[in-house]
Amino acid sequence: MARLEDEGPPPSDTGRSRDQYEVGRLLAFSDGVFAIAITLLVLSIPVPDLPDPSNAALREALVRLLPNLFAFLLSFAIVGRYWSIHRQLLGALVRADRRVVGLNLGILLTICLVPFSSGLLTRYGNVPIAVQVYAANVALIGIVFGGLRFYLSGRRELADQATLKEQSNTERTLLAPAIFLVSIPIAFWSPLAAELSWLSLILAGRISTLVRGRRAREPGKQDS
Amino acid sequence: MARLEDEGPPPSDTGRSRDQYEVGRLLAFSDGVFAIAITLLVLSIPVPDLPDPSNAALREALVRLLPNLFAFLLSFAIVGRYWSIHRQLLGALVRADRRVVGLNLGILLTICLVPFSSGLLTRYGNVPIAVQVYAANVALIGIVFGGLRFYLSGRRELADQATLKEQSNTERTLLAPAIFLVSIPIAFWSPLAAELSWLSLILAGRISTLVRGRRAREPGKQDS
Amino acid sequence: MARLEDEGPPPSDTGRSRDQYEVGRLLAFSDGVFAIAITLLVLSIPVPDLPDPSNAALREALVRLLPNLFAFLLSFAIVGRYWSIHRQLLGALVRADRRVVGLNLGILLTICLVPFSSGLLTRYGNVPIAVQVYAANVALIGIVFGGLRFYLSGRRELADQATLKEQSNTERTLLAPAIFLVSIPIAFWSPLAAELSWLSLILAGRISTLVRGRRAREPGKQDS
Amino acid sequence: MARLEDEGPPPSDTGRSRDQYEVGRLLAFSDGVFAIAITLLVLSIPVPDLPDPSNAALREALVRLLPNLFAFLLSFAIVGRYWSIHRQLLGALVRADRRVVGLNLGILLTICLVPFSSGLLTRYGNVPIAVQVYAANVALIGIVFGGLRFYLSGRRELADQATLKEQSNTERTLLAPAIFLVSIPIAFWSPLAAELSWLSLILAGRISTLVRGRRAREPGKQDS
Repeated sequence: MARLEDEGPPPSDTGRSRDQYEVGRLLAFSDGVFAIAITLLVLSIPVPDLPDPSNAALREALVRLLPNLFAFLLSFAIVGRYWSIHRQLLGALVRADRRVVGLNLGILLTICLVPFSSGLLTRYGNVPIAVQVYAANVALIGIVFGGLRFYLSGRRELADQATLKEQSNTERTLLAPAIFLVSIPIAFWSPLAAELSWLSLILAGRISTLVRGRRAREPGKQDS
Repeated sequence: MARLEDEGPPPSDTGRSRDQYEVGRLLAFSDGVFAIAITLLVLSIPVPDLPDPSNAALREALVRLLPNLFAFLLSFAIVGRYWSIHRQLLGALVRADRRVVGLNLGILLTICLVPFSSGLLTRYGNVPIAVQVYAANVALIGIVFGGLRFYLSGRRELADQATLKEQSNTERTLLAPAIFLVSIPIAFWSPLAAELSWLSLILAGRISTLVRGRRAREPGKQDS
Repeated sequence: MARLEDEGPPPSDTGRSRDQYEVGRLLAFSDGVFAIAITLLVLSIPVPDLPDPSNAALREALVRLLPNLFAFLLSFAIVGRYWSIHRQLLGALVRADRRVVGLNLGILLTICLVPFSSGLLTRYGNVPIAVQVYAANVALIGIVFGGLRFYLSGRRELADQATLKEQSNTERTLLAPAIFLVSIPIAFWSPLAAELSWLSLILAGRISTLVRGRRAREPGKQDS
Repeated sequence: MARLEDEGPPPSDTGRSRDQYEVGRLLAFSDGVFAIAITLLVLSIPVPDLPDPSNAALREALVRLLPNLFAFLLSFAIVGRYWSIHRQLLGALVRADRRVVGLNLGILLTICLVPFSSGLLTRYGNVPIAVQVYAANVALIGIVFGGLRFYLSGRRELADQATLKEQSNTERTLLAPAIFLVSIPIAFWSPLAAELSWLSLILAGRISTLVRGRRAREPGKQDS
């Protein structure tokens, strides 16, 4: 582990080495939590329990699991996407103070709740409150992320401001919680409509990716 | 992985490189255990099993899960806080002998028990012995941490003493187990009073953070 | 963590340092998911629930668990093998763009599904559709791997092409999904025959290992 | 991540950098599996399910969980100890060929089985075959470890032979499987006697630690 390494060069660098250790462990712990939360999602697809295991009966039982598979795929995409945002955002981190640790634990807390709210969505996909709990959970992840980004911006001793600014997906970080928040009242009227509204995010994401991809390929950014 | 790296500079440095490998794996393993234990906590919030999934019935079932959510949040905060203390304490570690490995396994053992005692607290929050088992578990984590800190202090070959001393939260490491130990007899009389006494820790923590935050911002500490 | 380190040497290297951070987190997250998925497989071997725990009754119950053990060993070998392929393939990675992250998440998604499809195989090993779902899952892992390899080949800014080419097990990466795909129609006719066809892969693997082992020991490859 | 780093110094070092990457991922994956297997052990201590949650009833239920706690502590100690041996043994590793990866997967396979066999021991601690399955599992871990150690010894291109030799606990690596193997026939006669025979290992370990501790503090070993 390079965790404690490179205390070497100039004596004034011990501070940087300590920062590296602290940032490193923050990342290792976070990657662990994200990895476990995303893998636990599969537990929401139960192996069917059939007394008469004929091929037809099992096929039917598997078809009945399709909503579970849908919720699994959705939650996998969301946790995976937030891990990717975490990777980008914390790529700018050079030092982690208590508040960064606290906000990061807040992110992990909301991520850890996804297997529960995803299980809720799986079982009660057509009940308004289940859809609302799920939407609230996902919105909350985005809000805490926004909080961390806001806290880091402008604090040169904590985060590389250039790297932070470059991630122009601020609009997107805010877009996801906005869509999920808007879907909460929609679910009162129709849970299905709320669920469909989430898909607009994927569309928005795709468009944003195209735009950003073009920007990223511009000549002025060769060195990063 | 830098785990085996930098065998380079002077030939006498192979010892340091080995130490880095050993400390590195200790940290990777510990981060893994903390991450899994904290993520498993969500399993103590079961998805309700309703025969008639109306919106009202599900809302009621979710309200009945509030104690589970409380226990989840409490245990998440405790494990997260202890991970943060672990990160600070082992930031001073430069070499891990058998006893450090043993004491660290002791810490992980008590951490691994939290999902069980948290589950106990969730189900039997108003039964004295459930509250006492939980309090004893949390106190035990703090005590083993204290043991590791005590073992490292004064051992220059194992830990950077300056870094160790700087973490003036010794008082706090002792405060947490003290409060949880005191709550054990209180629970005989009233489980709720014991649970409320734990909240005093959060208050104490907040005050201590303010004090330490001020100290940390003092001019003499620029280089760490 | 060396994650943010070595921003040092020439100022133009900050890009490389960022790449290292991004590749590093991709690997840490992937190793976590692989590790959890492979460890969760053991949950498909349930501890028998006997009212009368005599030695004879327990021995009988354990014998009845042999198919579970078979499925566990098979899935462990498959996930372990794909982890090993992941380790080789991503050893060539020098930079991770959005598409690499996406394809890698696709690999992890198919890996995360293995505990479910392995549980299905365990319980319904003689039902065609269970065998087919399992085969489809394993084939899918190989196909997404193939997609990532295809995407990386030729992109010098993303992957070290020499390292990539050296891994001449392209034929093998394609062989595994091919055999599992072929076994899907076979399972309609006989689930057992399909399962046995998978064993041909191990045989093929063994032969390929021998061939590659000989190649790898050739003089021209000393320096890698 | 230093995983891909330091391709720098002399051009002939790219081989070493690749080796570091491959060893690093082997360690990260292994640490993950060990961490998950050791944390999953807590699932073998179920939260009691009481219809009438009085303090006396819960205390009684917790007392009935003591065998579970015993099995948990034993398995935790065994997995923790083997992780520690893994850390020592692979500290000598400089390069991981296919066979090292294969043997390491073998170790992880036997480690992953511990939550199952530990659950078996918990429920059927006085049934010979349960004790025998557990003993066989633990013995198997030691045997595969012995296989990896045997394979590495003498192979200078794979492992640092000096580091390997220094770990004079070869006798101990063999002692653990030997004691567990011997306990298998003992369990036919008396499961309890077999379980008690395992404790002799802890005693032997303690003595060996004392002896080795003294050796390690000898003057000639300052530099490692």
